[in-house]
Amino acid sequence: MRLDHPAAPNSPHERPAAGHATAVAHPNIALIKYWGKRDDHLILPASDSLSMTLDVFSTTTTVRLAPEAAADQVTLNDTPAADEPYRRVTAFLDLVRERARRAERAVVDTRNTVPTGAGLASSASGFAALAVAATAAYGLRLDATELSRLARRGSGSASRSIFGGFALWHAGRGTGADADLSSYAEPLPVGDLDAALVIAIVDAGPKAVSSRVGMRRTVETSPLYRPWVESSRADLTEMRAALLRGDLEAVGEIAERNALGMHATMLAARPAVRYMAPATLAVLDSVLRLRQDGVAAYATMDAGPNVKVLCAGADADRVARTLRSVASRTYIARRGPGACLRTEDGR
Amino acid sequence: MRLDHPAAPNSPHERPAAGHATAVAHPNIALIKYWGKRDDHLILPASDSLSMTLDVFSTTTTVRLAPEAAADQVTLNDTPAADEPYRRVTAFLDLVRERARRAERAVVDTRNTVPTGAGLASSASGFAALAVAATAAYGLRLDATELSRLARRGSGSASRSIFGGFALWHAGRGTGADADLSSYAEPLPVGDLDAALVIAIVDAGPKAVSSRVGMRRTVETSPLYRPWVESSRADLTEMRAALLRGDLEAVGEIAERNALGMHATMLAARPAVRYMAPATLAVLDSVLRLRQDGVAAYATMDAGPNVKVLCAGADADRVARTLRSVASRTYIARRGPGACLRTEDGR
Repeated sequence: MRLDHPAAPNSPHERPAAGHATAVAHPNIALIKYWGKRDDHLILPASDSLSMTLDVFSTTTTVRLAPEAAADQVTLNDTPAADEPYRRVTAFLDLVRERARRAERAVVDTRNTVPTGAGLASSASGFAALAVAATAAYGLRLDATELSRLARRGSGSASRSIFGGFALWHAGRGTGADADLSSYAEPLPVGDLDAALVIAIVDAGPKAVSSRVGMRRTVETSPLYRPWVESSRADLTEMRAALLRGDLEAVGEIAERNALGMHATMLAARPAVRYMAPATLAVLDSVLRLRQDGVAAYATMDAGPNVKVLCAGADADRVARTLRSVASRTYIARRGPGACLRTEDGR
Repeated sequence: MRLDHPAAPNSPHERPAAGHATAVAHPNIALIKYWGKRDDHLILPASDSLSMTLDVFSTTTTVRLAPEAAADQVTLNDTPAADEPYRRVTAFLDLVRERARRAERAVVDTRNTVPTGAGLASSASGFAALAVAATAAYGLRLDATELSRLARRGSGSASRSIFGGFALWHAGRGTGADADLSSYAEPLPVGDLDAALVIAIVDAGPKAVSSRVGMRRTVETSPLYRPWVESSRADLTEMRAALLRGDLEAVGEIAERNALGMHATMLAARPAVRYMAPATLAVLDSVLRLRQDGVAAYATMDAGPNVKVLCAGADADRVARTLRSVASRTYIARRGPGACLRTEDGR
């Protein structure tokens, strides 16, 4: 067994000089899902979630303080950010500035390597990288737990991308400041587990409902939401045990049922929130056939039509090949590192 | 407003001489679903359901007593029945014989007009027709409520096909004989409502899980099943009011959410029970687009991949035309009659 956070943030010891920092973070895929908040402002989830951080699709973010500037300047993949994306970043920087008791504006440059149109959210890796880079640039010394808690304020799932490998995001207890303090991710001990996630991209039109809207509608209108939250608690307990003993089949089974349960709660929202497209079900059918053929492959889906298929690393190529008949593209991801500062850049 | 059972069974007054009778019945599509039994033997459902009887796909069944025969003889569409279909019919005839205090075996000849491979169950029309024909042949005088209760023992949804138009099947109260007595369908008063159901047949492999197995697994393993049953009660109350005021949009909305909720409970069963195929979702997408184009069209699905789309009778052709781009075949059904004896045959 090993505690798998190969690259837990290297602050405070290796923290570069304040004023300028670059950080790298990776997306994560939840195996026990986060769906629904109990506090929209503090981004406190209704239940604990658990994820695997990937080794692909990294986000690299540089934060440079700009004492002369009147406003933050944010660039996403060479394009100036505006509107909601801009506001989310500046609101996050405000949290960092408040904590650092500093007022300088900043120049933020972010590069995502998520393929365009892949329908994969980059907010987890994005805010994990921003949390690490911005705190360093503003001279804050935060440990990994504090970084996770902070990243959560940008995007809930970013709290998990602070850690590599498998991470558990605690929903936290109570309300207000207590809840804020108790809601963060931690790396999980995992047994001998060679897991890969094959990401199957399916063609689908633009997302009809954003995940924010979808979450809220599910929480507020789905009669099946609360019972799913309850069942998700039990899933988490079983999942931790399955990870600890390195039982890929159990991990996959629990992940698949947790995801299907989440999509079931959405389907029962009013009106229904349905991210599953025809091609999504074609991939699920393929996954069932793979299992019938003796391949341990299990599906999980998020707020979009794509499917992520958990399997043994040794089976990943075969799974990807099979899914290519129903998916437009596939990517193979393995366990990735936690968010970290790029030292060559900061020193 | 009218009480819509144009052809409530014509017994006892027109009952033909015992010994030989032919009855006709039609399938029904549930708008508030029946999914899950609280008593497998008595076929007592977990919750009330509500349906529209169709004017297409009739079943015609003749029952002729055969005093010399040692066993019942059952023919389905010119093919001798065996195994489970045979056993279900003889077990049903045993109920009739017990009640009539008669012992003769019977020859049963059934003809379904459901298109082959359409994936539409004929057990509702089949057992409704059998209940009417067999009781007449064995000389029983049952009223429509008693026939409905009896038909239920053959197949739950057959209790509703005894009535034309819209029917409500009461789950019944308590257990045992009390419950048996209180679980039957009744015709529902309906306002000025011109409703059609466009049946969209989609290509899909053989059903992986029978509805019996699917129901049981959902009841026993889905953490979302009980909450759906609760929500279905509220749906039923709203649906009765919507039918009474002839509000097609409300009827459609409630029917669609009730069906999606039912499929959601199945999706959360362990392992998942999924009747939705890729093409099912393609039809659902088409229905959403029809609504965006201002056509009141609402989907409902049962234990299979086909979709039934509720719309105004005046829109049925347009809806069918639209769905033909994603479905392999479409049929238009309207409100049909209740089960009845064929008098020319019995006199």
